[in-house]
Amino acid sequence: MTEVKKKLETLGEDVLKDIDNQKNPDIDIPVRSLSNVIYDDKLKQLTLGDKVSKRFLFNVAHAKPFMQFMLIAALCKELQEQNIHTSLRDVFYALKRTLPNSDENTFDEQNESDPIIVDLEVTLDVLREQLHLNADVRGRVVGNVIIKDRGDTINWSKLGSGGWSIPSNVEELTFKSVDADYILVMEKNAAFERLHEDRFWQKQNCILVTTQGQAARGPRRLIQRLSSDYKLPVYVFTDADSYGWYIYSVIKYGSISLAHISERLGCPTAKFIGLTISDIDEFKLQGFTIKAKEVDIKRAHEMLKYDWFKHPAWQKELKLMIERKVKAELEALSGRGLRFMTEVYLPTKIKRKDFLP
Amino acid sequence: MTEVKKKLETLGEDVLKDIDNQKNPDIDIPVRSLSNVIYDDKLKQLTLGDKVSKRFLFNVAHAKPFMQFMLIAALCKELQEQNIHTSLRDVFYALKRTLPNSDENTFDEQNESDPIIVDLEVTLDVLREQLHLNADVRGRVVGNVIIKDRGDTINWSKLGSGGWSIPSNVEELTFKSVDADYILVMEKNAAFERLHEDRFWQKQNCILVTTQGQAARGPRRLIQRLSSDYKLPVYVFTDADSYGWYIYSVIKYGSISLAHISERLGCPTAKFIGLTISDIDEFKLQGFTIKAKEVDIKRAHEMLKYDWFKHPAWQKELKLMIERKVKAELEALSGRGLRFMTEVYLPTKIKRKDFLP
Repeated sequence: MTEVKKKLETLGEDVLKDIDNQKNPDIDIPVRSLSNVIYDDKLKQLTLGDKVSKRFLFNVAHAKPFMQFMLIAALCKELQEQNIHTSLRDVFYALKRTLPNSDENTFDEQNESDPIIVDLEVTLDVLREQLHLNADVRGRVVGNVIIKDRGDTINWSKLGSGGWSIPSNVEELTFKSVDADYILVMEKNAAFERLHEDRFWQKQNCILVTTQGQAARGPRRLIQRLSSDYKLPVYVFTDADSYGWYIYSVIKYGSISLAHISERLGCPTAKFIGLTISDIDEFKLQGFTIKAKEVDIKRAHEMLKYDWFKHPAWQKELKLMIERKVKAELEALSGRGLRFMTEVYLPTKIKRKDFLP
Repeated sequence: MTEVKKKLETLGEDVLKDIDNQKNPDIDIPVRSLSNVIYDDKLKQLTLGDKVSKRFLFNVAHAKPFMQFMLIAALCKELQEQNIHTSLRDVFYALKRTLPNSDENTFDEQNESDPIIVDLEVTLDVLREQLHLNADVRGRVVGNVIIKDRGDTINWSKLGSGGWSIPSNVEELTFKSVDADYILVMEKNAAFERLHEDRFWQKQNCILVTTQGQAARGPRRLIQRLSSDYKLPVYVFTDADSYGWYIYSVIKYGSISLAHISERLGCPTAKFIGLTISDIDEFKLQGFTIKAKEVDIKRAHEMLKYDWFKHPAWQKELKLMIERKVKAELEALSGRGLRFMTEVYLPTKIKRKDFLP
C-alpha cells in the first residue's frame, strides 16, 4: 500500500473510531491564512506556523465542510486504488450531486472544492500531485538531460524546437543523466525560444526552463528536484517589475497560499539574474521601458513590506521602480539587437556573478 | 535565396523604382475587415475578397504607416539573412525609436506594429512563420508519429506524460512516420492528460492534440499538415458552449481576423465530436451543466448569423443553448465517472459516427 493511501485510510479509520466511541468526530486542519504564514530566514522559506483549527462533524457551521472533506478524501482514495490522475475541475464534477430528499448540493461551485483539496493536502502533509490531482500545466524545458517518465526514456536535448512539455505531475519521473552547470528559468516563452534557437543551453551547458508566466507546480517541483539532486545553481530571469520579481520569489521561497509545501516546491538557493531597474541604465535600455501602472506601484509597495524582500538590494530595486514609475520587459533587450540577450546581457551577468539574492 | 526573401526584396525594389521614376510610391494592401471576408461554402473556408487599399508614401494619413510597413519589412529581411526567429513583442522593441529631431516615435505601442505585420503577411502572401515571426505557443501532442525537427528525430509516442510541446513555428518540421487512424483535437489540457493516461491514443490508434484554449497558429498548422498529408479525419472536442464551438470553427474554417491564411491554417474536413447540448440528455449530464451567462447567449446569437454555422444541426444546437440557457464543459463527463469520457463517451460517438459538420 502507498504511504498516501495509508494516510487516507487512517483518516477515515480515526473518524470511525470516534463514532464507535460515541465521540463527536473531528479533524485537525492547519490554518493556512496569512496570520499563520511565517518567513523562515534561515531556511529561506515561507512556512506554515502551528495554528490548527478543529473541524467537527456535529457542529452546524462545520457539518457541510466536514462532509465535503470526507467526500474528497474518499475520491482521492479511489484515485489511488484505480491508479488514475485527474484535475481539480473534474473532482468538482465527479463529486457534485444533490443530497437525497433535499435541495442541498454536495458542492455548488469549484471554489468550494478547491480549498478543501488544499485542506486535505495540508492535513495529510502530502502533495496534491501525490493525491493524483493534476494542477495547471504550463512550462517547457530543454537541456542535456535524460529522464525516464512512464516507461519512456526522454532526452531533453533532442526534442527539436518544441522542447519537453513539463507535465503537471513530475513526482514519478526519474533523472537518468544530467549534464549542466546551472538552470536558467525564465518567465517568458519568447525569450526561451530565442535562447533555444541560439543553442544557448548547448554553448553555456545549462538547462533552460520557461514557466510561461507565474510558475505552475510542475515546473517549480521540477526545478527544485533538479537543483537539489544535482546541486545546480538556479538563475531566474523575469521582467523588471513587481509581478516578475514576485514570480522569482515564489520559485525561491514559495507562495503565501501554498506555504505548507514550500519545502517541496521552493528552491532556496535560486538567484535573480535580471531584469532589474538598475539594468536599464547599465545596459542602455532607457528607450525601451514602459510606464509602470498604478497597480504595479501598489504591488511594489506591498512587496517592500514582505520579510523576504527585506534585503537592501531588493529594497533598492523596488524603491527605484516606485520612484521612476518605470518597468522593463525581457523583450526590451531586443531594442539593443535581437541577439543582445544571448550574446551580451546573460553572459555578462553570469560572468560578473551579478545576481540579486 | 528563399522565396520569402525574394518577395521582401521585390517589395523594396518596387518602391525604389517608383522613386527613381519620380512617382509617389505606393503599396497595395488587401483589406482585412469583415466587409472583405467571404465564406466559401465549397472550399469550407473563410477567405479574403479582392478589395485592396493603396497606401502612399506622400500622403499625410499614409506616411507614418508606410514608414512602419517598410521598417517591419526591412527587419523581416534581416531575420531571413541572419536566419533567426523572434516574437511580435520583440519586433516592436527592436523597431521602437524616436525619429531624429522630433518627438515622434516609430511605434508607440505594440498594437501599432502587430496589424502592420499582418498587412505585410497579406501583401506578400506568406505566413508570419515564414517571415520568422513566432506566434503564441500553446498546445501539446502525443501519438504514433515520428518527426524530424531542427535535426532531431522525435517520437511522439515516447515522451512520457508530458507529450511534445507544439512550437509556434511548424513550417520546417518533417514527418518521418505517421501511424494513426484519426486526429482527436481537444480544447482542454485536463481531458488530454486523462486520455493520455488511459493510453487512448494507443488503444484507438489516434493522435491526441490539446490546443489549451483557442488554437494558436502552431497547432492549427500542425493539424492541417498532418490531416492533409496523411488524409486523416480530424475530430474536435470542446465544451458545449458558443466559445467551444467557435474554437472548432476556427480550426475548420479559419478565423475572421486571419481569413487570408485559412488555406494554410484551416482544416475543412474537420468534424465536431462534442460536446453538444443534445449530449446533455443523451449522456445523462443534466446534473453537471452550468447556467449560460448573458455573454454566452449573445455570442450564440451572433454565431446563428454566421454563414459557416448555417447547417441545421448547428442552428439546432445554438438555439437549444439559447433556449435552455445552459452549457456543459468537458469535465462534466467526469460527473458520470472519471473514465466515462475514455470508455463510454468518445468510443460511442466515434462508433456511431455521431459528428456535427
